[in-house]
Amino acid sequence: MAKRPLILVTNDDGINAPGIKYLVNIMSLIGDVVVVAPDSPKSATSQAITINSPLFVSRCSNHSVAKLEYQISGTPADCIKFGVNEILGKKPDICVSGINHGSNSSVNVLYSGTVAAAIEAGIQGIPAIGFSILDYSWNAKFDHLKEIIVKITLNAIKNKLPNDVVLNINFPKSKVKGVRICRQANAHWKERFYKRENPMGKEYFWLTGDFINNDKSNETDEYALKKGYVSVVPIKFDLTATDYINELKKWDFDD
Amino acid sequence: MAKRPLILVTNDDGINAPGIKYLVNIMSLIGDVVVVAPDSPKSATSQAITINSPLFVSRCSNHSVAKLEYQISGTPADCIKFGVNEILGKKPDICVSGINHGSNSSVNVLYSGTVAAAIEAGIQGIPAIGFSILDYSWNAKFDHLKEIIVKITLNAIKNKLPNDVVLNINFPKSKVKGVRICRQANAHWKERFYKRENPMGKEYFWLTGDFINNDKSNETDEYALKKGYVSVVPIKFDLTATDYINELKKWDFDD
Repeated sequence: MAKRPLILVTNDDGINAPGIKYLVNIMSLIGDVVVVAPDSPKSATSQAITINSPLFVSRCSNHSVAKLEYQISGTPADCIKFGVNEILGKKPDICVSGINHGSNSSVNVLYSGTVAAAIEAGIQGIPAIGFSILDYSWNAKFDHLKEIIVKITLNAIKNKLPNDVVLNINFPKSKVKGVRICRQANAHWKERFYKRENPMGKEYFWLTGDFINNDKSNETDEYALKKGYVSVVPIKFDLTATDYINELKKWDFDD
Repeated sequence: MAKRPLILVTNDDGINAPGIKYLVNIMSLIGDVVVVAPDSPKSATSQAITINSPLFVSRCSNHSVAKLEYQISGTPADCIKFGVNEILGKKPDICVSGINHGSNSSVNVLYSGTVAAAIEAGIQGIPAIGFSILDYSWNAKFDHLKEIIVKITLNAIKNKLPNDVVLNINFPKSKVKGVRICRQANAHWKERFYKRENPMGKEYFWLTGDFINNDKSNETDEYALKKGYVSVVPIKFDLTATDYINELKKWDFDD
């Protein structure tokens, strides 16, 4: 590519998270980087957007290699909308989101603000990738990921991801055996709520839970990650359950 | 059905919205209703969940026909998680969410807290439906919907929706010609941000935009609604773009 690609970077852990710093540094090797990210952690905000309150936007310079950088008081999806329409005024060549501190494999993809930002870019016709590592710690090590992140990003630019597909990439915590193209594992969370009292004696609950993988196939992201591979799941945002349309047409709505 | 079904009701406009009041009243004709809904409006929160702050839960009695009713300081997805695991302690026979004040057709499904609540129930193996009307006003009229909501809900209970499918139902603003089984229209929002200053002179932005329907097919939810029909889209939460897996396997990650 003669011209350096324009790369929009965001995340959901907030602009000060180590994961986005690492990703920005890698992207600066590939192209011109513009960062538009939440000004505070917005984990598990899914594809929420801010419509009932205003957004505050500040120019900043947390990442010395970025050409331009803004922090926004909204969600990851807000950052893409604002970044593309107000800051860039045009589509970047690619949008990358992450590196998320924690897994977005399987059903976690649905809650992820990181992947939702990539989906938001996809809706706008921008090739997009969400990157996550299976390590919630802010001390997570990323050095084993540099080469593979460059390869995946260059592939996505070169092979022109179609408009309706976005990549959900998850990395093992350490050491990478290779890459596996997977489907989303069928799993769910078994919720538990910790019950406590605040200093005023008012009861509160805190969501936690256990991840239950119901999927024994060796073609899932969960399987690949367990075996030490990077999982690459192509995802789409047309949610239609096409296979069920004919079944639904048999239902009787008119009697 | 000999036994009255147990019906969990939630929404994203908050427990005091007229839409949920109407839905609770209708559901009480069909079964025993438990309401677990956000204590304030949570529009466009998608499938966000509350993991970084506590949840406050209060028993309440806004809806006289409900057997049990709670308001929660979290999102619609939180309400399902808490309702099923902490309040009911078992799966209800069906979960219904809405009636949302405003469209959740096409790509709007991705931002919707109302439909996300239904998806959350789906993940937990509960048949689930999201209902929305194409009228943002809190003065929206619902009386043309009673019969069709009863029919759809009874059908969903009788025909046993599969575990991986949830229904996204949108209603025309007034008068209903009939029901159409559809797919999600391919559309997007062309964003605009209103720029203003707050009383302290600090600049802020407010998201708005124009809905652009790129899909000329007559099989979409947008088409059905435009023609005066109720749109029924079966949706799934396995986001895998299965058709693209083989294409991705041709990418070169190993050179």
